[in-house]
Amino acid sequence: MELVFLGTGAGVPTTARNVTAIAIALWPERGAVWLFDCGEGTQHQLLRAPAAAGPRVRARQVERVFLTHMHGDHLFGLPGLLGTRSFQAADTPLTVYGPPGTRRYLETSLEVSQTHLTYPLGIVEIESPGIVHADERFQVHADWLEHTIPTLGYRVVERDRPGRLLTDRLATLGVPPGPLYGRLKQGQSIPLPDGSTLHPDEVLAPPVPGRVVAILGDTRPCQAAVELASGADVLVHEATFAADRSALAPAYGHSTAADAARTAHDAGAKALILTHISARYSGDGADRLLAEARAIFPNTRLASDLWSYPVPASRAGRAT
Amino acid sequence: MELVFLGTGAGVPTTARNVTAIAIALWPERGAVWLFDCGEGTQHQLLRAPAAAGPRVRARQVERVFLTHMHGDHLFGLPGLLGTRSFQAADTPLTVYGPPGTRRYLETSLEVSQTHLTYPLGIVEIESPGIVHADERFQVHADWLEHTIPTLGYRVVERDRPGRLLTDRLATLGVPPGPLYGRLKQGQSIPLPDGSTLHPDEVLAPPVPGRVVAILGDTRPCQAAVELASGADVLVHEATFAADRSALAPAYGHSTAADAARTAHDAGAKALILTHISARYSGDGADRLLAEARAIFPNTRLASDLWSYPVPASRAGRAT
Repeated sequence: MELVFLGTGAGVPTTARNVTAIAIALWPERGAVWLFDCGEGTQHQLLRAPAAAGPRVRARQVERVFLTHMHGDHLFGLPGLLGTRSFQAADTPLTVYGPPGTRRYLETSLEVSQTHLTYPLGIVEIESPGIVHADERFQVHADWLEHTIPTLGYRVVERDRPGRLLTDRLATLGVPPGPLYGRLKQGQSIPLPDGSTLHPDEVLAPPVPGRVVAILGDTRPCQAAVELASGADVLVHEATFAADRSALAPAYGHSTAADAARTAHDAGAKALILTHISARYSGDGADRLLAEARAIFPNTRLASDLWSYPVPASRAGRAT
Repeated sequence: MELVFLGTGAGVPTTARNVTAIAIALWPERGAVWLFDCGEGTQHQLLRAPAAAGPRVRARQVERVFLTHMHGDHLFGLPGLLGTRSFQAADTPLTVYGPPGTRRYLETSLEVSQTHLTYPLGIVEIESPGIVHADERFQVHADWLEHTIPTLGYRVVERDRPGRLLTDRLATLGVPPGPLYGRLKQGQSIPLPDGSTLHPDEVLAPPVPGRVVAILGDTRPCQAAVELASGADVLVHEATFAADRSALAPAYGHSTAADAARTAHDAGAKALILTHISARYSGDGADRLLAEARAIFPNTRLASDLWSYPVPASRAGRAT
């Protein structure tokens, strides 16, 4: 589970930062990639993303796209990516989640351009907060943030997984390796040679807590942001402005770096990554954003284009 | 009048070639830029286009966009460019010309993304061949080519300009510099001191012939292509395939390099530039396209991304 930052700028592309897109590469978990937003040029960034983070991500491997909102800098790369996925002969389904308008935009773009997809495209328009996707390994929650247009934040929750079998203890108890191990691993009790019953929690290490990643769209500080990020292993939050624009930020439906840090703090998140950096903070100028956030929430990083962040194993208990 | 090749690939972007867009920088002529097609990432290419060709082109300086057809690799960069033009506080009008569908695509993209333009946007859907734009310096003709969907070719015709005043001859005739010069330059006759009449063509060098640039969308060889390129100073033509795919090209509505060369030859064009190069001819692989075209039409060049080509003064007479 690795975050790959494909675009970390705000509003318009610059030579340093493309407009917004964030991938979660889920290679070990499911051999696929999920995208959060897809600004213009996201497919170009995929061509440049380093292989260090695992295999280079190809458009055909994108399985789900979660749009936070319909502003062009989060959206206009999606029709091209859908087309390129066909060009790469993808045949696995792709599902796009987003606010109302998602369907109209995509259907018009594909129709007018006569883009014929080689795979099933699902479009899920999110009307109300809640769980928008669930499978055997992950759940994705969405909730409304506070921006100038309807904007979503997403909370990706990895389910806890059973702990490993304590094979030393099993040997002592006289349980031979084989099908009985499998039953214990699946949470079933088994009979022991002495006639008693062995409960799986006696021979399993504690469950491996799943990780929680919160990726929020553009927003001013709000309660929903805190709730989406509650106890998250990592919170990805916009920081469009520094403190010098703190009076301006709410009017534009945006946050300062300090706002992001306060949300991370209030949510009890374990790490914070700042993104959606305005072009006015170019080069070293972005360091002030980092400094302002770290003064409030020390475990803060500043995203840059093509940077990747492996989400560490979640060690402590957490609220889901 | 300089061509700037912003994207010279076909179908999907690669690290070497972006999808299609060609600028005509008209700095001396009108301080503005015209775009032909606008694939995804065109605004990114503008950020990278070298200043050697004149001032770096900014989105706000784009005055007209001529779309050849609605395939995504020629189109999907336009909504972002329109938005960025607003971000740069452009207040001069922009006009987009294209096949039917142009309006629906642009209006939907702008509406759904709530992109509010700071300038007037004109949309001209071209229904039938003919002159689609005319001003004091240029005329633009459009005609239908033969592709898999309705596709236009454009012929940009610079009007002939009056020749310079032959000041030596004027001095001999006793005409003093001043307002009389202006009248002659405007094509008016003037009275001479001896009572006779001086006709302007007696004291003007021959007219400076305007240049003709033909930029065609994707097409298999067709008569309209030859006519649009008739006597052109430069023909920009797709060359999606090399000879090895010559059986395939027409079925896909595309041309080989040799097809492009034959069109240039049949049209009596003065120069040919190949673009829209398939990713299968990467690196030196594209040299074969050039060789195949030059065997038929020697004055051929192969476009590459960010390459610019100043259109030379037109020396000989030409058919318009």
